[in-house]
Amino acid sequence: MPALRYLTAALAQAIDARLMAPTDGAFSLDQLMELAGLAVAQALAADYTLPKYTRVLVCCGPGNQGGDGLVAARHLAHFGYEPTLYMPKPGNKDIYKRLEKQCVNLSIPRLTTLEELRHTLSAQAQDVILDALFGFSFLGPVRAPFSAVLPLLRDSRLPMLSVDIPSGWHVEDGPVRLQSDEGEDLGPALDPEVLVSLTAPKLGVKGYKGRHWLGGRFVPPTMAREWELNLPEYPGGQQIVELPRQGAL
Amino acid sequence: MPALRYLTAALAQAIDARLMAPTDGAFSLDQLMELAGLAVAQALAADYTLPKYTRVLVCCGPGNQGGDGLVAARHLAHFGYEPTLYMPKPGNKDIYKRLEKQCVNLSIPRLTTLEELRHTLSAQAQDVILDALFGFSFLGPVRAPFSAVLPLLRDSRLPMLSVDIPSGWHVEDGPVRLQSDEGEDLGPALDPEVLVSLTAPKLGVKGYKGRHWLGGRFVPPTMAREWELNLPEYPGGQQIVELPRQGAL
Repeated sequence: MPALRYLTAALAQAIDARLMAPTDGAFSLDQLMELAGLAVAQALAADYTLPKYTRVLVCCGPGNQGGDGLVAARHLAHFGYEPTLYMPKPGNKDIYKRLEKQCVNLSIPRLTTLEELRHTLSAQAQDVILDALFGFSFLGPVRAPFSAVLPLLRDSRLPMLSVDIPSGWHVEDGPVRLQSDEGEDLGPALDPEVLVSLTAPKLGVKGYKGRHWLGGRFVPPTMAREWELNLPEYPGGQQIVELPRQGAL
Repeated sequence: MPALRYLTAALAQAIDARLMAPTDGAFSLDQLMELAGLAVAQALAADYTLPKYTRVLVCCGPGNQGGDGLVAARHLAHFGYEPTLYMPKPGNKDIYKRLEKQCVNLSIPRLTTLEELRHTLSAQAQDVILDALFGFSFLGPVRAPFSAVLPLLRDSRLPMLSVDIPSGWHVEDGPVRLQSDEGEDLGPALDPEVLVSLTAPKLGVKGYKGRHWLGGRFVPPTMAREWELNLPEYPGGQQIVELPRQGAL
């Protein structure tokens, strides 16, 4: 079996674009986001079981990865978890607002200020963090308000599951010290216990040593061959598959 | 636990409309159809396991239930099944065409004529039928081309899984002899082994005695309470839950 391919940011973007092109993959963003977010929720449920890990702080960025996070929060609520949303900079797109509304309909609470974030973390009022802040288009440095958010999440020492690329990591170069856009050193990179790569893993997580899931079971095999993704087989009707741990014998 | 509610056609329609109203449920049709079709595929995979049941004839009507069938066909192909599509009257909506294209991208073959349907059934070239022809808006009688299709499917004696309401059944009155719109008696109703109800079961399947799954894990509990649906708990992160068999002790 040829090795799994790790994607550059450019290839990840090209794949997304082709999956959603009407005369090509023909998927809607709604479909892909729903399947991605469901996969993330199922991975979290596989690793952080109820009732030990009930309270999930779901941190969503303004882009499509934030949308995946909102979908995951909704599914987690249906699964019996108690998600809390934190969107330091909510997205403007219509789909984002609809996904937010779906969470409101489930009475999922939301933190609105950095102070509330600091308080919930220091009060140990969360059991696990779902990091859906930055996706594969993030290249750094970290701008406000995220320059305050990321160190808080990291320093909470809560177990963390990141989507696609841990927020603040360089999508191709991997873990780098957090640096603000004003040149301030914000300390070490996030160190999530669990990672859920979507569609295919990105170059920056090639050396990632934690538990690693793959989700996004929607890539047509013809496209996977064309791009030489060499995806593993998903088991049965599952939406996630575990990738071998780096460095494991 | 109060009894599960069986929906009239009018209530089923009202629930769908509210789930998709922008200021209410805020779901897109793409989202609901994706989750419904995935649930159908997972129910089929639970009952008709590989490799014994590899070849699935997925029969899709022109409406939203046909869309659920197209989504299910796609997921089944990813699960390792060999679906074949049969759409006696393909839908016209944009979403329907996109879902068709997604199946083309997976090289899912398609029967285009009644003659091809007759041939594949008489050649025993299919292992199980997925009936996604008519949904909860069907009230009868059966018009062409379905007046020829339904008897062929029934008389094939292949195991069958129906979505929401077995095609040709009255959505509220249940199994009735098939009757064409020209008054012709087309014989007994379909008799599927497995049924997948979506959102909540319909009145017409209240006496159904086969294996019965519920899918559509997206109804907010506040809405479920308002409508007194009394839905069962889904297990863990599953998208389907089995309903107790009628008449079972």
